[in-house]
Amino acid sequence: MLIRVLGSAAGGGFPQWNCRCPVCTLAWNNDPRVSPRTQSSLAISADGHHWLLLNASPDLRQQISAHSILHPVSGRRGSPIYGIWLTNGDIDHVAGLLSLREQQSFTIFATRGILDELAANAIFSALAGGAVTRRAISHNAEIAAGYGLDVTSFAVPGKVPLYREGARVSTDEISEMTSGLNLRHGGRTALYIPGCARVTPDIKARIAGADVVLFDGTTFVDDEMLQLGLSNKTAARMGHLAMSGPAGSMAALADVVGPRKIFIHINNTNPALIEGSPERRAVEAAGWEIAFDGMEIDL
Amino acid sequence: MLIRVLGSAAGGGFPQWNCRCPVCTLAWNNDPRVSPRTQSSLAISADGHHWLLLNASPDLRQQISAHSILHPVSGRRGSPIYGIWLTNGDIDHVAGLLSLREQQSFTIFATRGILDELAANAIFSALAGGAVTRRAISHNAEIAAGYGLDVTSFAVPGKVPLYREGARVSTDEISEMTSGLNLRHGGRTALYIPGCARVTPDIKARIAGADVVLFDGTTFVDDEMLQLGLSNKTAARMGHLAMSGPAGSMAALADVVGPRKIFIHINNTNPALIEGSPERRAVEAAGWEIAFDGMEIDL
Repeated sequence: MLIRVLGSAAGGGFPQWNCRCPVCTLAWNNDPRVSPRTQSSLAISADGHHWLLLNASPDLRQQISAHSILHPVSGRRGSPIYGIWLTNGDIDHVAGLLSLREQQSFTIFATRGILDELAANAIFSALAGGAVTRRAISHNAEIAAGYGLDVTSFAVPGKVPLYREGARVSTDEISEMTSGLNLRHGGRTALYIPGCARVTPDIKARIAGADVVLFDGTTFVDDEMLQLGLSNKTAARMGHLAMSGPAGSMAALADVVGPRKIFIHINNTNPALIEGSPERRAVEAAGWEIAFDGMEIDL
Repeated sequence: MLIRVLGSAAGGGFPQWNCRCPVCTLAWNNDPRVSPRTQSSLAISADGHHWLLLNASPDLRQQISAHSILHPVSGRRGSPIYGIWLTNGDIDHVAGLLSLREQQSFTIFATRGILDELAANAIFSALAGGAVTRRAISHNAEIAAGYGLDVTSFAVPGKVPLYREGARVSTDEISEMTSGLNLRHGGRTALYIPGCARVTPDIKARIAGADVVLFDGTTFVDDEMLQLGLSNKTAARMGHLAMSGPAGSMAALADVVGPRKIFIHINNTNPALIEGSPERRAVEAAGWEIAFDGMEIDL
């Protein structure tokens, strides 16, 4: 199984268009300790020729352009991309669908709840029904996604998309609205969990049984945005788990030592983006890697 | 008045993700006769510091990144971009709004009809009402858009967005759904008309009075997509005027010799994208230029 990281940043990308936090400022100044990152998405292939994308980030057109494995190879129209699997309905995971509106045939895999969000926004009808198949996925049922790749979706604690938030928001909801994916081929297993509010026993057991996990690395500390004066939201309020702290992902998964552990969906404010920073060193000392755009994993 | 071309291609960009037409194939092969282009958008400034964007293409995050004039310059959060003016509701002109969802204050200028299309799609509510002002614009009334720039919107023959097309589509409709813009500062005038189904006497007179016009250059011939077997739609069916032919834009504007005439919103199939091609030479012989990403116009 081949995994290519198309984008490793959280929503907004890195640097974020309007941000001059300490980490973004390094990026605007072209500091060599940081690398720009587009928004979270993976390409997965079992055969090296046909690719399933996990999430469609707003940067998708730029990501396709940057990766020749995704360029069309034959015929007058075509694409090695045969499907897009959506793990939630957030803008950073669905807006890229609008860049695929060219009568090209592919399948959107998502839970009914996420497909309903797309259907409620007429702009997505540009993905013509005659060309694009919407396939409603139930959690915990393995699907032959195509070309040798078997995928199981499972529920992850999270919240509804920002544009669907009401006056009260449940940020630890286990529902159809936030998924993790188990990807299987040739006896190897990868897990993709780009948004996760809490490590449940179920999620911990799934990670322990995988060869590699790409996990929510949005913030380093839970109140990162508040400390910087950028937002009144903690990571938990955004439906994400911080890397550090007694309730963070590094602590929750400290005794899971089998799989390769990689943080993805990293927010622009996260100092672990800075090579050599104390936070990066703490992440590495805990046995984790920081994903970067173009990272290749060959399982 | 400073004009920076952020993107010069039509919807889909150049090359288009799934296309191997002769022109796209040159781009995939890195042929030096063609340059990749992102989707149609301009940045305009009267003072060189504060910028109004004309349309928000799906490539907006990449475009901001590529142009240091649009990077944040002070404070913890901020942007030199104070507004976005939308000329229609097509995906290639509005999807980039989803990349500006970071509680940043700016104004969206558009007709009521276009604002209604955004409001009908809940995903755009991520542009929080407290930060982002929607300003409904009437045609033919000059607006002080800010920082010395005066803008007049006017109706241009066109059609509703693709995702709003019904069984019958009027492709030559003069309404709120397709606008051209007249931009004025310091006695100089620029016109931006990225989509236009027909040159009316009103439009011709406006162009004759301007210093520069950036005009719809979608296709070279009207049946370009049909000839290539890529689509059953003519340029006219898509609400666009071809460059060539007795009814094309070059003929319609042949006797307008005052303004600098530049084609923009150029489709990936258009052979005028190829430097030195017969079509490019015909365009240049007719006194027109072909816009490219990064083109700077100083009026």
